Amino acid sequence: MTTKLSFTLFLTLIVLLLPSSPEARRLPFLSKPSHPQNNIVSDNYTYQIRYFQQTLDHFSFHHLPTFPQRYLINTDHWLGPSPMAPIFLYCGNEGDIEWFALNTGFVWELAPLFGAMVIFPEHRYYGESMPYGSRDEAYKNASTLAYLTAEQALADYAVLITDLKRNLSAEACPVVLFGGSYGGMLAAWMRVKYPHIAIGALASSAPILQFDDIVPLDTFYNIVSNDFRRESTSCFDTIKKSWDVITSVGRKANGLDRLAKTFHLCGKLKSSDDLFNWLESAYSYLAMVDYPYPSEFLMPLPAYPIKEVCKKIDESAEGTNVLDRIFNGVSVYYNYTGQADCFDLDDDPHGMSGWDWQACTEMVMPMSSNKNSSMFPEWDYNYTSYAVDCWNEFGVIPRPTWITTEFGGHDYKSVFKNFGSNIIFSNGLLDPWSGGGVVENISDSVVALVTKKGAHHLDLRAATADDPDWLVDQRASEVKLIKGWIDNYYTTKKGVFNM
Amino acid sequence: MTTKLSFTLFLTLIVLLLPSSPEARRLPFLSKPSHPQNNIVSDNYTYQIRYFQQTLDHFSFHHLPTFPQRYLINTDHWLGPSPMAPIFLYCGNEGDIEWFALNTGFVWELAPLFGAMVIFPEHRYYGESMPYGSRDEAYKNASTLAYLTAEQALADYAVLITDLKRNLSAEACPVVLFGGSYGGMLAAWMRVKYPHIAIGALASSAPILQFDDIVPLDTFYNIVSNDFRRESTSCFDTIKKSWDVITSVGRKANGLDRLAKTFHLCGKLKSSDDLFNWLESAYSYLAMVDYPYPSEFLMPLPAYPIKEVCKKIDESAEGTNVLDRIFNGVSVYYNYTGQADCFDLDDDPHGMSGWDWQACTEMVMPMSSNKNSSMFPEWDYNYTSYAVDCWNEFGVIPRPTWITTEFGGHDYKSVFKNFGSNIIFSNGLLDPWSGGGVVENISDSVVALVTKKGAHHLDLRAATADDPDWLVDQRASEVKLIKGWIDNYYTTKKGVFNM
Repeated sequence: MTTKLSFTLFLTLIVLLLPSSPEARRLPFLSKPSHPQNNIVSDNYTYQIRYFQQTLDHFSFHHLPTFPQRYLINTDHWLGPSPMAPIFLYCGNEGDIEWFALNTGFVWELAPLFGAMVIFPEHRYYGESMPYGSRDEAYKNASTLAYLTAEQALADYAVLITDLKRNLSAEACPVVLFGGSYGGMLAAWMRVKYPHIAIGALASSAPILQFDDIVPLDTFYNIVSNDFRRESTSCFDTIKKSWDVITSVGRKANGLDRLAKTFHLCGKLKSSDDLFNWLESAYSYLAMVDYPYPSEFLMPLPAYPIKEVCKKIDESAEGTNVLDRIFNGVSVYYNYTGQADCFDLDDDPHGMSGWDWQACTEMVMPMSSNKNSSMFPEWDYNYTSYAVDCWNEFGVIPRPTWITTEFGGHDYKSVFKNFGSNIIFSNGLLDPWSGGGVVENISDSVVALVTKKGAHHLDLRAATADDPDWLVDQRASEVKLIKGWIDNYYTTKKGVFNM
Repeated sequence: MTTKLSFTLFLTLIVLLLPSSPEARRLPFLSKPSHPQNNIVSDNYTYQIRYFQQTLDHFSFHHLPTFPQRYLINTDHWLGPSPMAPIFLYCGNEGDIEWFALNTGFVWELAPLFGAMVIFPEHRYYGESMPYGSRDEAYKNASTLAYLTAEQALADYAVLITDLKRNLSAEACPVVLFGGSYGGMLAAWMRVKYPHIAIGALASSAPILQFDDIVPLDTFYNIVSNDFRRESTSCFDTIKKSWDVITSVGRKANGLDRLAKTFHLCGKLKSSDDLFNWLESAYSYLAMVDYPYPSEFLMPLPAYPIKEVCKKIDESAEGTNVLDRIFNGVSVYYNYTGQADCFDLDDDPHGMSGWDWQACTEMVMPMSSNKNSSMFPEWDYNYTSYAVDCWNEFGVIPRPTWITTEFGGHDYKSVFKNFGSNIIFSNGLLDPWSGGGVVENISDSVVALVTKKGAHHLDLRAATADDPDWLVDQRASEVKLIKGWIDNYYTTKKGVFNM
């Protein structure tokens, strides 16, 4: 206790003494969705848009304004309350809910098979679900952002679905949760925390173990690196070499201008670090969306885009220097359509990001990069500088051990063996987030579905004609398990009624 | 949704239009413990008193002061971290933790048998565990009281035990939860919400179903009434008759003075209602503490005190009128030692009660009294007048459906059948709170231990030479089940280590 208190005081002192600190590395989570890159529209996904007046703070009793939580709903295929037809609820994550709905075809395709209702509630503080009337007001300062937490979001979903079921006299209809990435974490946590609300959860690419020291801190960047090495050792080597080249060019007279020109930047390059971030992001996101067919999830991309990036890097004309090779490579990510003339390293440097707030409060996911196994520059995780950054950006000090206290993680195998049921953890091993995921079966009904060549929540995407067999099989397993949960629920219900 | 919003608006209007409302009946929970009636001191219960700097709001990120949470700890019998010796944690409820510790002998007696550490953390806003520096500041208004909720209390226990285990390198030591009454609810809920923190819970006399309309609203007062009828029909009849007599006497000239004299009140009687409350409290508490041996839990009392009360009522000299009989009866409760010369109906009319705040926010337990089955005056549950009272007293509007949304209850059999394990719900059927308790086995490891002649969390009290066999048996079953949880935990741990 004394230790904890002193450390907080110590940290506060550091924070006050060091107003300007070295930039701590924040994780490359799917923070992009708040600015959808493209509009996928499909006739399969029709829904009504509704709003629910939501309690801002579920866990204390201040007088606070409610806020309109947006949710998408489709009841076209729902068989209604009397046959206890299921309700599929996607746990909205850190972005506009329509964007997630359009990229989660699996749920829409499943609904008619199960006679299910589909609901996509939006996560508070994202999209249109803004407390205090507007995004500007909601994101004004630490006091207004205070209620942007995972626990509050889960309570939102619980309150919303309870109210909705009551209004439809559908209290007995089983709810199945879906979610990908952070949404997958929410789905798994919701199944554990609200077993009376939902009978099971498909948590896709949910890195619920990426906290504290549960998994090795270098796992994320090692997986990204291995994805590149797997395609080509020389590609991996070129990328690994490039950081020193950038640093040494950047230090020369007019070096930053030369780098800006090489990488076709629209504006000035202020430091090599900005270029590092831009490149690191591209590699990390490429690893996440290394899908087996052309996709437009974050960016328009070809099938297995890492293969294409490495082709460009490896197959540039002989004599092409390292930086030009790198530029050719990342252009596959940033400019696959060829429409960009130049690149902005940071679209909106002054906009506060909701995910950054979450990372600065409870979603502290420690990461490092290991020079022996990674193609990235080496760095260690430094909580102090991370916390200082958070203080400078938001005026908040993180609670780095809170998530594992609230949701567990350290001893997850023992816990799930004796408690809990009906969770699918699906992971693709190309996805760097799989390093923080559950990739082993734990019990009969807490199971891991792992695909060697899958990427970030690939299974939640709509079926395509190009789906490889292993993906078709994975989805079939998921359908079978979900059907089992629902059947078992009906059996139990009948048993209870007859008691 | 629209309905909900409008109802809140409607309620707010009512609240504003009706500053003075008829007093809604608040439940007779164990709100007394904040003023211990007596000091039981036992050599068996030695402990250190420690304080933990606790986060005031676990679920949002305001800048709030921490507060010192008091906890009692005894490690005398603990076998330490390397044999993974267990930790017994009593979930402190609405009162001074020392008082609960002294009245929960079972846990102290168990500790040496299991080589266990014992911890009694105090519930926030009770005893010495006061936010904002003092009770006066903590209870100042709705803003300072805002964080007095069950969810925050559970998070306190989770944070405290996690920190304590880390400091002792005891992360692998299994935690078993204990709790009685509201503390039993907390223990059961904690097992469900924090399965990674505790491997099982003994929830004694925990009315987790006394919410919404899960159980019939008249169940509590029916059980109290049956406890009296069971002893003597004429006793039941006399009590049932007495309300009309009080009302009619009270209406006469100097009637209130006559009542005050009959009941030996120290001060003036302002209305018959106050006398009703005083008598109803006595009967309800008598039902709770109808223990098979003399006890001093709430008041010094003889064995099976209801039998004694009824004796006094029935066996008063022939010709004794109804009110004198009633007075003779309740004197067993209020004045068993014979030391009181007169009675104060309300010890502290201006003191805000923590439990009243909880009842006015989330712990809304609807109750009514049915003229056909109850010995009490008839009344219906009226949420509106309940809410108006809460507004007038605390400036807060309750959230009557929140507890079942957060913790479940409506479909608890189906839920526990498929999810969760290692909970004992123990109940004595004399206890009126057993009406809101789980009294049927649900699965192999979510079990109900019910005693016909038990009262309010009798099993948690220290063993006495007067314990009836059924009580000895009940405690033996509890020990066996707890031992099973711990053994199973060790087996699982070994399995996981060997994987």
